[in-house]
Amino acid sequence: MSNQNTVVKTEANILNGVDVDGIFSTIEAIQTNPEIAQFKFRNSNKWITAGYNRSRISNFYGALQEFSNREFILENDEPPVLLSEDRAPNPVEYILHGLAGCMTTTLVYHAAAKGIKIEEMETRFEGDIDLRGMLGIPGAKRSGYQQIRVTMKVKANASKKEIEELVKLARRSPVYNTISEPVDIKITLED
Amino acid sequence: MSNQNTVVKTEANILNGVDVDGIFSTIEAIQTNPEIAQFKFRNSNKWITAGYNRSRISNFYGALQEFSNREFILENDEPPVLLSEDRAPNPVEYILHGLAGCMTTTLVYHAAAKGIKIEEMETRFEGDIDLRGMLGIPGAKRSGYQQIRVTMKVKANASKKEIEELVKLARRSPVYNTISEPVDIKITLED
Repeated sequence: MSNQNTVVKTEANILNGVDVDGIFSTIEAIQTNPEIAQFKFRNSNKWITAGYNRSRISNFYGALQEFSNREFILENDEPPVLLSEDRAPNPVEYILHGLAGCMTTTLVYHAAAKGIKIEEMETRFEGDIDLRGMLGIPGAKRSGYQQIRVTMKVKANASKKEIEELVKLARRSPVYNTISEPVDIKITLED
Repeated sequence: MSNQNTVVKTEANILNGVDVDGIFSTIEAIQTNPEIAQFKFRNSNKWITAGYNRSRISNFYGALQEFSNREFILENDEPPVLLSEDRAPNPVEYILHGLAGCMTTTLVYHAAAKGIKIEEMETRFEGDIDLRGMLGIPGAKRSGYQQIRVTMKVKANASKKEIEELVKLARRSPVYNTISEPVDIKITLED
């Protein structure tokens, strides 16, 4: 974890595009003060029409400070078969995108910490949804993903066994954990 | 659920931008043949560098057919404090975006089915992550979101009680269910 000042980096400390010294100094800082590891991520969203809505992602808290000098706008929509106009991916597709990115980044950072150079990495995701759950029609096991299947291709200067070990570490991904283990969601309705 | 042909719609059948007749004909079709409710969503992703990677979202299966005439490109990145360059939201932020969109759409569609006009709807999300989980430093309860807090503002031609009922129905959202209940994730490593 670096601060946002520019740091002069020597070539030797960068692997997979990651500042390897940064990983170890982050771990050291967190071991000294676990509060540094506490992050809060946020999103605000506004409905537009039908399945179309727009989020603003900006500030987050982490490493004992607020970060606000950033802004991303994202849209959700649904395809016509789900009664909207397909102006953007739909929410369950965004979940697969987040899962893909998080498992990839977790694997790549752990590889960097181990001195393993990733040459290429590609993943594919597929998940099953039974629409009866959302509609309240009896018969669905659940309204969310019943199963998500992940296919990973990792090319690296490492043995098959080391790559399998990296794939295991990818399960530490915050999104993998968020989806594979239940999360407490608290809803407040404001006037 | 409509097919993708243009359908002449009368003003009276559209509420909250949703084809209300479409909702009821979808429910009727699914009750006749539950296979119509089975959907498969997909994503493929390619790592670029550090926390930066890119997804392609295109075809999905649903209502007994493949849909492929669409393409969305999404990127993940991490902020500098998480050792990348903040070119895009990070994966855990995408999860909040997907949750926001899905709860909103679920609420808006159920409102349309009940004849309730939504005038405005805004949501805010915040979730807590302890980075120790991802890094493998002991002490974290988990690596994913520990809790997600949702604040909803819904303006509609409905009583407080009816709006509270809609908020309960928003829990049928596929993403809400995916996050609040455990999902089976199967990983295959390809050569």
